[in-house]
Amino acid sequence: MYLERVNSPDDLKKLSISELKLYAKEAREFLVKTVLKTGGHLASNLGAVELTVALHYVFDCPKDKFLFDVGHQSYIHKMITGRLRQMSKLRADDGISGFPSPLESDADTFMTGHSSTSISLALGLARARDLSGEDYKILPIIGDGSFTGGMVYEALNDIGQADVKLTIILNDNKMSISKNIGAISKYFTRLRLSRKYNIFRANVKKTLLPFFGDGENLTLKKAKGRVKEFFLASRLFENFGISYYGPVDGHNVAELVDIFRKVSLKDRPSIIHLVTQKGRGYAEAEESPDKFHSVAAAEKAIYFSAPPNTQQTENVDVQRDMRSFPTVKSFSVLAGDTLLKLAEKDDKVVAITAAMGLGTGLECFAKKFRDRYFDVSIAEQHAVSVAAGLAKGGYKPYFFVYSTFLQRGFDQILHEVSLGNFPVKFLIDRAGAVGNDGATHQGIFDFSYLSLIPNMTIMTPKDGTELAEMIKWSANFPHPLAIRYPKDYVTEYNVCTDMTPITYSKHGKTSSTKCPIEYGKWEVLKNCGSKVFLLAAGNRMIDLAHKIDNVNIINARFIKPLNREFLYKINKNGNLIITLEDNVLSGGFGQAVVSYLNAERSADISSINEAGAKIINFAHGDRHVNSRDVALSFKESGITEKDIKTAISRFFGGLPH
Amino acid sequence: MYLERVNSPDDLKKLSISELKLYAKEAREFLVKTVLKTGGHLASNLGAVELTVALHYVFDCPKDKFLFDVGHQSYIHKMITGRLRQMSKLRADDGISGFPSPLESDADTFMTGHSSTSISLALGLARARDLSGEDYKILPIIGDGSFTGGMVYEALNDIGQADVKLTIILNDNKMSISKNIGAISKYFTRLRLSRKYNIFRANVKKTLLPFFGDGENLTLKKAKGRVKEFFLASRLFENFGISYYGPVDGHNVAELVDIFRKVSLKDRPSIIHLVTQKGRGYAEAEESPDKFHSVAAAEKAIYFSAPPNTQQTENVDVQRDMRSFPTVKSFSVLAGDTLLKLAEKDDKVVAITAAMGLGTGLECFAKKFRDRYFDVSIAEQHAVSVAAGLAKGGYKPYFFVYSTFLQRGFDQILHEVSLGNFPVKFLIDRAGAVGNDGATHQGIFDFSYLSLIPNMTIMTPKDGTELAEMIKWSANFPHPLAIRYPKDYVTEYNVCTDMTPITYSKHGKTSSTKCPIEYGKWEVLKNCGSKVFLLAAGNRMIDLAHKIDNVNIINARFIKPLNREFLYKINKNGNLIITLEDNVLSGGFGQAVVSYLNAERSADISSINEAGAKIINFAHGDRHVNSRDVALSFKESGITEKDIKTAISRFFGGLPH
Repeated sequence: MYLERVNSPDDLKKLSISELKLYAKEAREFLVKTVLKTGGHLASNLGAVELTVALHYVFDCPKDKFLFDVGHQSYIHKMITGRLRQMSKLRADDGISGFPSPLESDADTFMTGHSSTSISLALGLARARDLSGEDYKILPIIGDGSFTGGMVYEALNDIGQADVKLTIILNDNKMSISKNIGAISKYFTRLRLSRKYNIFRANVKKTLLPFFGDGENLTLKKAKGRVKEFFLASRLFENFGISYYGPVDGHNVAELVDIFRKVSLKDRPSIIHLVTQKGRGYAEAEESPDKFHSVAAAEKAIYFSAPPNTQQTENVDVQRDMRSFPTVKSFSVLAGDTLLKLAEKDDKVVAITAAMGLGTGLECFAKKFRDRYFDVSIAEQHAVSVAAGLAKGGYKPYFFVYSTFLQRGFDQILHEVSLGNFPVKFLIDRAGAVGNDGATHQGIFDFSYLSLIPNMTIMTPKDGTELAEMIKWSANFPHPLAIRYPKDYVTEYNVCTDMTPITYSKHGKTSSTKCPIEYGKWEVLKNCGSKVFLLAAGNRMIDLAHKIDNVNIINARFIKPLNREFLYKINKNGNLIITLEDNVLSGGFGQAVVSYLNAERSADISSINEAGAKIINFAHGDRHVNSRDVALSFKESGITEKDIKTAISRFFGGLPH
Repeated sequence: MYLERVNSPDDLKKLSISELKLYAKEAREFLVKTVLKTGGHLASNLGAVELTVALHYVFDCPKDKFLFDVGHQSYIHKMITGRLRQMSKLRADDGISGFPSPLESDADTFMTGHSSTSISLALGLARARDLSGEDYKILPIIGDGSFTGGMVYEALNDIGQADVKLTIILNDNKMSISKNIGAISKYFTRLRLSRKYNIFRANVKKTLLPFFGDGENLTLKKAKGRVKEFFLASRLFENFGISYYGPVDGHNVAELVDIFRKVSLKDRPSIIHLVTQKGRGYAEAEESPDKFHSVAAAEKAIYFSAPPNTQQTENVDVQRDMRSFPTVKSFSVLAGDTLLKLAEKDDKVVAITAAMGLGTGLECFAKKFRDRYFDVSIAEQHAVSVAAGLAKGGYKPYFFVYSTFLQRGFDQILHEVSLGNFPVKFLIDRAGAVGNDGATHQGIFDFSYLSLIPNMTIMTPKDGTELAEMIKWSANFPHPLAIRYPKDYVTEYNVCTDMTPITYSKHGKTSSTKCPIEYGKWEVLKNCGSKVFLLAAGNRMIDLAHKIDNVNIINARFIKPLNREFLYKINKNGNLIITLEDNVLSGGFGQAVVSYLNAERSADISSINEAGAKIINFAHGDRHVNSRDVALSFKESGITEKDIKTAISRFFGGLPH
């Protein structure tokens, strides 16, 4: 077994090239076995086995810096750098992160969870290196999916002038998370399929010679035959002033070691184009790599017995106890399917996603309404602006997006959407604590960064039924609107089959729930005459509230605007108002409630010494939530049954209320 | 006079081509005369005269949609579409906006102030058009400067697959706001300077023939001689699946009309490359277009007599009453010059800008420390991430950026900087209300979008001296830090000549002011024993506070963290705490104060019916600030001397305090 002999890059360097191949084979088998148990990103890591092995063989980590983009392709890297045994607790709090983490190891350069950042970070690092006269190598390892993010282009543009030594490894596995689309993808395909790829492989030495000799000074005139075409195809990068080498078979260790050695001697910004196969070596993953992009923490058998659609959502981890509920759906699938029904009735409804069609439940929509479905690839800034354009043109765009990724479109929401007050709808998935993905994917900032935006309305549903109702209600709402929901499952799903659009009015009502949605109004779920009012935002907080006895429970379905009349009514001396939210305190729901009641109090001269109700905010603190377990995230933030009960007891001086 | 005969696109269409030229000449003269009086963006509009005239001649606005990117090149468009007479009140509240505004005219498609948005917006609009079976033309008009923003690339990538009819007009004036840098700029230069440009101009008909006939099917094999090279150079766009036409002389009306007509018949996404000259027709602006990018609302004579540096800041409007202060400096220049002094003492200090080197006062720094100055062009996402990389590499990066533009880097601050807790310093210029530029440039959101970010510290100075002190203090502060200041001038500037870095400690002090900066501590500016405490954030609010008699005035130099001990001390029944900030209420300074005091109060059982101090927040409301005058912005938001006095009177029941 080579696997267990390698616990550091130095161990790896002791192997011969043919032993490296055996190591890679073992590592791949180990990966399949482990990740099917722990859950995590499988296919992308299977595609990155040989390239990671070759990188560690040639370069000197941690002195040389590897930047994985997106970070979830770093499992093999973790195994080589001393974390093999911890792989069994991948993505768990007592194990290791599913993304690079400098807290975990010096071998991890940055904590990277969002795509397209590596070249920018690398360039900054390279400038620091050069300024301080140090000498080490910097290698961003970037997937073709990440290449659709605009930041990559900003970085390439800057490198073009910088003339900084930097070797970019393009891991081209021919698809991003679901389907790679757009011109850059077509371009990579042309590069891959062009004859020179084969020539390059067949005559690798002959082709490399002019390349690595004085090849860089080769002009078009000098270049002959197919080599010439090769240069033509590589012009995209050459136009940016970056030397292009490739394509290279990303699963041939010997070839990889060879090209890494040669290119690393160059003193210029370079890009090495590796062609890899996502899911390589695991037949099922090879066939359907999108379904294996991220797999659930469950046995394979269970995985395949799960209900259709549920498992296909990208990056959803199936909770083990869900196995007994064969009809569960995620909020994601529910949202997508509801929009599909809405679209059947309303031909102005269109859906937009930024490479998260599967993850956000739009699979059926995409099939049925091919011409009203726009996957713009990993490009949230663009997605938000496209939505504004569609709205200007009279359509009803729904942007399905993860909370954490929508942060990339913040300025565009504020400008392109809010300034024009366009009816763009944001269906915000993976909101709140996200569990396994950890710090880089927390959706705990959206109440705050959306609340500060003028013209924005924010809603969050108490359950699946209400999510469907909200989507139905949103159809004719004429302003920007965000509906946010977490990475959870719903057990009920049998309402809202009639998706006939309703006409919006501030007092308009829908009729299919007991307490129909009305603009800016909350729903009283429980009124027991208590002096304690739990204002709960979203299903998780509603569920938590139901664990507390003898309190009034309010479904705060509108985060913005607040239900001011209701708040005014309950703001009485001796009352206790508790806000519950799965969001940070700063700028969130609770602070908005406190701010409103403070303004009321200060405006009222007669109540100068009248305290009004006490208010306690439960929210995430001013820190990154690093836990990889949802329940633990809440525990660490003090948002638990026990914390709430303690606060209530203290309010009543320890007396029963 | 043709100028006054044209008050609509229809009027323009009645002219002959040679009359168009005369119109263009008159329009240019009018522009110089007017903009030197009103202030505004001069050079870029002088470069866009003929292209705008030709666009309106060929296309049918407002049915066809023009999208100016950045919007400030739309003056001629405004003149043609009925707003000639309002040009004398350009950028004033009783006049017209300096940017396109649908509120003003149907001819303006979107309100665009930030760069690189037009192709995304256009694509969304085009999709809506095609889905609804409508038939109109969509023309993003985008400067080469905007082409450095990553969003453009995201849009091009999407267009590559969309096959949507869309004609992009690239207005290549060979420079963005200051100096255009980066690979894309070099690429455009190669396109421009390549022989085919001249050939194209000399033999325009001959070259165009194969182009517009079956030229699009022309393969490399068929193409001969120089035409072939031409195609090679245009491959950047061809790689994106976009047909490239050009370069065309952007000041030759006849040629422009010709090419617009021909390309608009095409059914594909196309780009027409126009080469223009920024400042065209106004000798001084032609020579130094960067200095005329935006000019002050003053007479030319005055303009040139202003002190050195002051006028070179991009987009700064000189206040007329500043003329009598020959030594005034803007906060911008003060910030840049202070960093320069700091950099002389500390070789780890580096500066980053996103094409705003002049505007943010970095001109001298850039000259003196060429290798420690990084202008990454209009690319804020990248800029923030480069800063993170530099910090990781042991440097002290200072990103000088406008508040409104930093919104583009929101996710990168939260992830690349905050997750790693890197000591990146954000020098945030144009914070608060910005005046003439209006809604698209307001810097009134930064307290909010930065406060919600863990690990972030936020400061704002009471005057120029304190800004310099803060920069000095920041040098060894080991965490992310934002210092924000408005588009104002300072009259004092004689401290902090000794920039020897101080060692940071939470209780560290600097010694050059009366009340040295201490982490998280405020400064009591006036203590008169009053029950009223004005907590004022930043110079504007401090100045406002000084207009109120018989109150205690506190310089809230730290917005985050708050000075909790101080707040706790003054939170007494019968006291009135007033917060003053040039930021929106939601998530801002005032809400943080209210939130903290509420938490204190709720945690304190003994004070259950104790009200504590009353708190009143003065801040901008939940709306876009559309006013183009700073004082009026405050008036509309109710942040004035009168409003504060009224609030205090009401608190005391109308009695003197």
